[in-house]
Amino acid sequence: MLDLRRLSIHQVTLLRQCTTPQFVAALTRNGVPCTSLWRDKTLEYGVEKTARIVADNGIALSGYCFAGLITSPDRDEAAKARDEVRRALDEAAAVKAPCLVFVAGGIDPRDKNIADARARAVDGIAELIPHARSVGVRIALEPLHPMICATRSVLSTVKLANDWCDRLGAEDIVAIAVDTYAVWWDPEIEDEIARAGKRICSFHVSDWLADTQDLRLDRGMMGDGVIDLPALRRMVEAAGYDGYVEVEIFSQRNWWQRDPDEVIGVIKDRVRTAV
Amino acid sequence: MLDLRRLSIHQVTLLRQCTTPQFVAALTRNGVPCTSLWRDKTLEYGVEKTARIVADNGIALSGYCFAGLITSPDRDEAAKARDEVRRALDEAAAVKAPCLVFVAGGIDPRDKNIADARARAVDGIAELIPHARSVGVRIALEPLHPMICATRSVLSTVKLANDWCDRLGAEDIVAIAVDTYAVWWDPEIEDEIARAGKRICSFHVSDWLADTQDLRLDRGMMGDGVIDLPALRRMVEAAGYDGYVEVEIFSQRNWWQRDPDEVIGVIKDRVRTAV
Repeated sequence: MLDLRRLSIHQVTLLRQCTTPQFVAALTRNGVPCTSLWRDKTLEYGVEKTARIVADNGIALSGYCFAGLITSPDRDEAAKARDEVRRALDEAAAVKAPCLVFVAGGIDPRDKNIADARARAVDGIAELIPHARSVGVRIALEPLHPMICATRSVLSTVKLANDWCDRLGAEDIVAIAVDTYAVWWDPEIEDEIARAGKRICSFHVSDWLADTQDLRLDRGMMGDGVIDLPALRRMVEAAGYDGYVEVEIFSQRNWWQRDPDEVIGVIKDRVRTAV
Repeated sequence: MLDLRRLSIHQVTLLRQCTTPQFVAALTRNGVPCTSLWRDKTLEYGVEKTARIVADNGIALSGYCFAGLITSPDRDEAAKARDEVRRALDEAAAVKAPCLVFVAGGIDPRDKNIADARARAVDGIAELIPHARSVGVRIALEPLHPMICATRSVLSTVKLANDWCDRLGAEDIVAIAVDTYAVWWDPEIEDEIARAGKRICSFHVSDWLADTQDLRLDRGMMGDGVIDLPALRRMVEAAGYDGYVEVEIFSQRNWWQRDPDEVIGVIKDRVRTAV
């Protein structure tokens, strides 16, 4: 049974219901010790104000989410995208997040070349490492589900994230975020989580609904789908991960329609029974 | 440029517009030499009648699609599912299809155990081999996209299909169908297609649309998406495949709404310019 002191609720889980102050109040009121902030919301409310309200309420941060999208084949576009990531690293440092969730970027219809897009992503990350080190924020490579490979992330598996980490040789600052929703189907997942070991800086949970209706915004509550979440938690813990379990649910048709206290209540129940 | 004598148009591409006789007439009228039959349509029109109309019009078959779904944790359900596959193998033999496209089946919410589901799939295929041999129809293991892992197929990669083939040791009768739509994102695809070699009995093309709106029924026409189809064709051909290039487009919002002759005309153009 998960100790609730390890619970983090990602801000996106209450994206539609709460402003940042309302969200922080809901966490505080329900005794949730940690969150991962959603970048758009942070910029909307203000980085400094967000840092202050989180600190004042004693809420820890498990991450800052997200930046990346650096795979453009156009040099100027790619340089601008890297600058945007540097700004996000600064913001992550300001709010005292240990890592920035990094989403690689998709395939450009102009070149359709996935191998080249992947190569540009790795080269681009290499260029971001000095800045990440200077602000003390880890770059958390997050493999995303292959169904959003075209639009969001050519980083599709934990194996590929491990390969990139091997190549980058920056274990102090480049890490891996394991999102159960993105990786549960992967036949290699157990081996690759073991290989990732101490690279794992973040562990996200939600569930895959059998009747999934949308490629991004139809995640399920833990226990409502087909993912064996306890098995995946055992894998990351066997690899040495003992950090927060971060609940990240994009849910247009269900959880985004509900009262924040109800959602948090269900989460607190499910992380104990289904994760 | 693809020789049009290698073109096969999967019946599902005109699923909503045509009965089987209308579909065969459209192929004949447009000089398309080959098809893969959709099982539901074949059963609806009748197996014998379908075999006759296809043969009478000189249409070759590249496959019979599909059967499988044998991953149930319930023994009786699984046995019934295997019987259904045996019937499909008989039908494939009757229509003179060289292979039956095999879709493994998904995860049962009753056990949520993907490793067990995969093990049951391999064991189930082993039980089907004698029947496949007796009717002379290859079982074409088709890895499907991880986004339909829960509902349709725990066989998610060509690597896993190769692993299953290694384990089954039945190279004469268990083969692999490579569907570009299902595998284009896979970082291991080049190596695993090379490893598959002569196991590849079927090659399906369509495209991944950047604005994909549905998990199953929103495939794009070759050239309209982000897949590097010529690269994938080079891979299967380097592995020794010289058979039909099968166009398989499930498209609720676009191609299923159009006139059959228009669709076939676009396909004949695109297989020459975009595959």
